[in-house]
Amino acid sequence: MKKIRVGIVGYGNVGRGVIKAVDAASDMELAALFTRRDPKTLDIADSGIPICNLNDAEKMKDEIDVLALCGGSATDLAEQGPRFAASFNVVDSFDTHARIPEYMAEVNAAAKNTTAIISSGWDPGLFSMMRLMFETFLPDGISYTFWGKGISQGHSDAVRHVEGVKDGVQYTIPVKSAIESVRRGERPVLDARQKHTRQCYVVAEPGADEAALEEKIKTMPHYFADYNTTVTFVKEDDLKANHSKMPHGGTVLHSGRTGENEHVMEFLLKLDSNPEFTGSVVAAYARAAVRLAAERCYGAKTVFDVPLAYLSEKSRAVLVKELL
Amino acid sequence: MKKIRVGIVGYGNVGRGVIKAVDAASDMELAALFTRRDPKTLDIADSGIPICNLNDAEKMKDEIDVLALCGGSATDLAEQGPRFAASFNVVDSFDTHARIPEYMAEVNAAAKNTTAIISSGWDPGLFSMMRLMFETFLPDGISYTFWGKGISQGHSDAVRHVEGVKDGVQYTIPVKSAIESVRRGERPVLDARQKHTRQCYVVAEPGADEAALEEKIKTMPHYFADYNTTVTFVKEDDLKANHSKMPHGGTVLHSGRTGENEHVMEFLLKLDSNPEFTGSVVAAYARAAVRLAAERCYGAKTVFDVPLAYLSEKSRAVLVKELL
Repeated sequence: MKKIRVGIVGYGNVGRGVIKAVDAASDMELAALFTRRDPKTLDIADSGIPICNLNDAEKMKDEIDVLALCGGSATDLAEQGPRFAASFNVVDSFDTHARIPEYMAEVNAAAKNTTAIISSGWDPGLFSMMRLMFETFLPDGISYTFWGKGISQGHSDAVRHVEGVKDGVQYTIPVKSAIESVRRGERPVLDARQKHTRQCYVVAEPGADEAALEEKIKTMPHYFADYNTTVTFVKEDDLKANHSKMPHGGTVLHSGRTGENEHVMEFLLKLDSNPEFTGSVVAAYARAAVRLAAERCYGAKTVFDVPLAYLSEKSRAVLVKELL
Repeated sequence: MKKIRVGIVGYGNVGRGVIKAVDAASDMELAALFTRRDPKTLDIADSGIPICNLNDAEKMKDEIDVLALCGGSATDLAEQGPRFAASFNVVDSFDTHARIPEYMAEVNAAAKNTTAIISSGWDPGLFSMMRLMFETFLPDGISYTFWGKGISQGHSDAVRHVEGVKDGVQYTIPVKSAIESVRRGERPVLDARQKHTRQCYVVAEPGADEAALEEKIKTMPHYFADYNTTVTFVKEDDLKANHSKMPHGGTVLHSGRTGENEHVMEFLLKLDSNPEFTGSVVAAYARAAVRLAAERCYGAKTVFDVPLAYLSEKSRAVLVKELL
């Protein structure tokens, strides 16, 4: 069987995750990695992976079945999504929730003869699928999403932008008692502070006033003011040694009733590496994009539009026999 | 908007669950309940629901958009699935796992101009969807399904068929330490006994030898011999008062890795009423069957074939905005 030829745009953490997932799949092969960087500077320069300039991507149109767009949502994808959807089947993990409808419309306009699956990954992605199923199967109920324990890039960036902070990371931690209450079917009303706490590990610039930094972080509007936040000052070595992994996870819970009967549904993820898992999900949706395109099912799609059978290497008959 | 006209075949526990779910949905209405029984004997005889003879179903073809088949897999569905798929869009919760491919082929042959979604519910159904996603997103891993705490109809029947047993129920209980081991990412190898225990509540016939009954149950091949089983003798009143509900649930767990990183995915259900929850899932797939049929997507389908957006009352745009 001819393998699916996957191109990857962007050699960041998610891009590396997609490379691993494609390597592990027997029906896919890595056709090219596109980057703005000088190929010689990449740690995979000698790996045999064809490393190409981002500007040359369209020239390789006929050698690639699907492009996985692995840049950031804020800057890269806003431009790359519509650009590449015009020429390639694409898949991405666009994750700025509030801007998804707008982004989807732009990608959809470009994807006239291609299939573009946007916002795959786990949130948006798997968690979104659970939210849809949970409220559909138990409409008389409430859904809750808790994140963590894991590193939030946005909040880590906010910490690092404080003057006097040299480096730092922020962990989002779900409040265990809140999760337990939802699991017991109590359907609590929870504000931001009651759902998550925020843990910061901060390296201060030499001579900085740590008490003042701590106060500045804890009172930062939007990011920290509405949460119970702890700030721990650490040395640079310590930060590198103990806080350079990218774990994440979370849980989607739904508590609802049918008549007199109460039910609880829950979906949990515990991930050692957020970008590697995301890359693995993106790779499965890349496979689905190629299959949808083969059926001329064009335009912008989301995880809500893709039949699960399209994700798997296995045939429909095998899936029914082994997994149904 | 014109409502989806749902017909229900079979007034058992799942049928009652579908009635509740259709009542709760703003886009569906109950068009008819088909049964072999005398309508006057049903507790909903005066509810206004049109109760019709099963043999007249085909005459009402034009008044029904989808039939929910709510009979048992062993006898009812084997006959009713192919029969009704020839004339109606149908949905069922056929749950004899080993016979699904054969049943699917028979229904598919009949569903030439209709859409037939088979084996919806939670296992097969939601649990199957999780098994598919879990192994696809983390192919280097192991999936585990645990059931319970809940009543197994098959095992309860087996207990009741023992000579000297007047009545009884059987609870399937997952072994907590096994689940914890999987959650910790240990990927244990587990045999039947290590995954589940079986708890029987039994009413003995007057004069029966309880010790002999207990021995007979515990050593019953296939059903109990491979498990740690407890047998508790109770009075008839006690059985009725404390063991007449139909709770169930379970968990699908997957533990796997990408490169050096370990991940755990889990999906949990805790249901006060197995048939009501099943009925609620069946109703959502009834909606999907009508939508697939409108696109002439005919034949036998499973939960693996249905895009999630087809399940919800909400439009695709609203789903993307609110839930993605």
